[in-house]
Amino acid sequence: MIKIAVLGHGVVGSGVVEIIEKNKQHIEKNVGEKIIIKRILDLRDFDVPYANLFTKDYDDILNDDEISIVVEVMGGVHPAYDFAKAALEHQKSVVTSNKELVATKGAQLLQLAKENHVNFYFEASVGGGIPIIRPMNNCLAANRIKEVAGILNGTTNFILTKMIHEQMPFDEALKMAQHLGYAERDPSADIDGHDSCRKICILASLAYGVQVNPEQVYTEGISKVTLEDVEYANACDCVIKLIGYVKWLEEDNTLSCMVCPALISKQSQLAGIEDVFNGILVRGDMTDDVVFYGKGAGKLPTASAVVADVIDIAKRDKTNHSLTWVDDKINHVMDYRKLNADYYVRVCTDAISDIKEQISQVFGEVTYLTRNHQPENEYAFLIKNICEQDFTDKAQKLSAQHIEITSKIRVLNY
Amino acid sequence: MIKIAVLGHGVVGSGVVEIIEKNKQHIEKNVGEKIIIKRILDLRDFDVPYANLFTKDYDDILNDDEISIVVEVMGGVHPAYDFAKAALEHQKSVVTSNKELVATKGAQLLQLAKENHVNFYFEASVGGGIPIIRPMNNCLAANRIKEVAGILNGTTNFILTKMIHEQMPFDEALKMAQHLGYAERDPSADIDGHDSCRKICILASLAYGVQVNPEQVYTEGISKVTLEDVEYANACDCVIKLIGYVKWLEEDNTLSCMVCPALISKQSQLAGIEDVFNGILVRGDMTDDVVFYGKGAGKLPTASAVVADVIDIAKRDKTNHSLTWVDDKINHVMDYRKLNADYYVRVCTDAISDIKEQISQVFGEVTYLTRNHQPENEYAFLIKNICEQDFTDKAQKLSAQHIEITSKIRVLNY
Repeated sequence: MIKIAVLGHGVVGSGVVEIIEKNKQHIEKNVGEKIIIKRILDLRDFDVPYANLFTKDYDDILNDDEISIVVEVMGGVHPAYDFAKAALEHQKSVVTSNKELVATKGAQLLQLAKENHVNFYFEASVGGGIPIIRPMNNCLAANRIKEVAGILNGTTNFILTKMIHEQMPFDEALKMAQHLGYAERDPSADIDGHDSCRKICILASLAYGVQVNPEQVYTEGISKVTLEDVEYANACDCVIKLIGYVKWLEEDNTLSCMVCPALISKQSQLAGIEDVFNGILVRGDMTDDVVFYGKGAGKLPTASAVVADVIDIAKRDKTNHSLTWVDDKINHVMDYRKLNADYYVRVCTDAISDIKEQISQVFGEVTYLTRNHQPENEYAFLIKNICEQDFTDKAQKLSAQHIEITSKIRVLNY
Repeated sequence: MIKIAVLGHGVVGSGVVEIIEKNKQHIEKNVGEKIIIKRILDLRDFDVPYANLFTKDYDDILNDDEISIVVEVMGGVHPAYDFAKAALEHQKSVVTSNKELVATKGAQLLQLAKENHVNFYFEASVGGGIPIIRPMNNCLAANRIKEVAGILNGTTNFILTKMIHEQMPFDEALKMAQHLGYAERDPSADIDGHDSCRKICILASLAYGVQVNPEQVYTEGISKVTLEDVEYANACDCVIKLIGYVKWLEEDNTLSCMVCPALISKQSQLAGIEDVFNGILVRGDMTDDVVFYGKGAGKLPTASAVVADVIDIAKRDKTNHSLTWVDDKINHVMDYRKLNADYYVRVCTDAISDIKEQISQVFGEVTYLTRNHQPENEYAFLIKNICEQDFTDKAQKLSAQHIEITSKIRVLNY
């Protein structure tokens, strides 16, 4: 019999309890023995049939030698980090769904797990119920991963889907997401891209074996995306999605890593990922593109990934099979201002003539886009392969001629 | 240092050699030690730099105690089965890409691996380079799998894609597939659905823990699908794909399992899987739909899945972590004639009047579809929820009235 403790009885924590109860026969058959929850840590009181399992004192768990696996589903870095660290030091394996914890403290906790011959698993931290961490680590092990790109946040994808298919303005779509429980009252972690950033950091660290920290990764949210941008994107057979990506720049041996709204072709496998769904594309040197799709959040999908990690640990001996990466204190991410990209640009102007000529003088050859009811003083175009820093300088030149850039969105090739 | 042998130096076998050489540093870092190919078994002679590794005598491999992993990539059941069996009995783990071997002898070889404390792995046998076996086994372990459905054969998907997007007739699309090397000179294993059948048997066995044999599974190929059918499918917002599916019928505790061309909604995640790509949808009771997408065949994608299995075994101790299912000699698959389904039907008739009335009398309420240039004597319609046996009986009644069914294709809800 495997005894576990659950830290946090919120959405995911109560889901873990539910799945372990509901699918207990299935799980026992799979593991070869029973998995039972011995303790649940939460400062709140709950009126549930298993109220006797609750404790407010973490020492009850830490000092219980029968508990071999600690499930951390509290969220946030503190005290989650301290709790996870203590558990590993007490030779207990740790399973977490906490992306912030993994993105910022992953290397340390992995190292600690190794030293203590236990495991630190986090399948649920990216993509909710979508298998991605273990497939990247195991199934694609024979590949050198060239790129990973994903729609990693369901809330922003829901909002963009409403904007694309129902021409619903951003604010209204956000309100609907909040009403449906997809977005928090303070939605900034989602719409400003921070949630996606943590997830791409985890995938980057895993793919390249070095800690990539969220503060190293340029992150742009979707709040500036307008219905006009969506319409222009459509005009060039694209949709706008919030993409987190990491790419290995072989020649420089650095990473290009970023979270930003982007125009991607409607032919892309990521373009068809709608609503609250997530999709992650992994480009290996041997497999080419492999895509994983499913519900990236939600109580039961996320909890089922947590329980799968518990099952995996329960089936193993004490040997450490953890995934691993190291924190070498080096910033491997290239300064985004030095990166070249294609851009979609929209400008407004009070100037009255020769606009296109002025744009050409500054940006060289561009491809113009049109939309229905396009105002006379609005222009939209695509620019090929320009460095961000260069772009900023040129935008200032245009501005000096009363041509203001109102939208600037990357065009990515996935 | 881990020493392995490769049985068969065909497309996949030479790919395995190529990947182990090309990504050796990456692999060594991952495993913690070198993986080297000590022996290659092939009856043919090859003019390659590693010609010294070849042998025509399997005993050279079997009796070599340094070889701990045998990679079987010969294809076919014999002698592949005999070789795999002997390797396991000699305490060597076996990795295979051979779907026919796994579909027909999986339970036996898994049992043998268990008895000998070694592993029998076959990630490459379904979906080529797409991770599917291990994710289903590990990542979705907390789920009871309700259904698995997939586009499991790249050749037929290429042909259907040409028919759908370029209105290319079946014969011409098949010739193009052959010309491009996607289809064999004798294409029957692909176009008659046998290849898909083996793959859905493997997925069914894995998902439900019991051996499902290819001969238990009703299998229908795509050679009867016409451009007219494609056009009618389009008229009801569907595409025609060759689908292999298995579904657990909880109330009867049996499986519904089949390979057939099917109309699926364009909104389905499987609808967007084009050309030679494969896609597999797994519907768990906790995760809902998870979809895996990528190249389902090809030298390097398939070989990379084989090498990933080798890496996984190399990283483990001798403990048996194999996936498992048992051959209980029971046919768990329900007779397809007793299954209810929705159908698309196309009829031609010499009769001159009251056709629709006669159709209604036989089939009850149906939904008619139309297409451009539809001949006067052609009718196409959708029928809801009818049992296959019942359908056959009713088709005979129609036939007696000179209304011949020229197409009958299932409508599946994925």
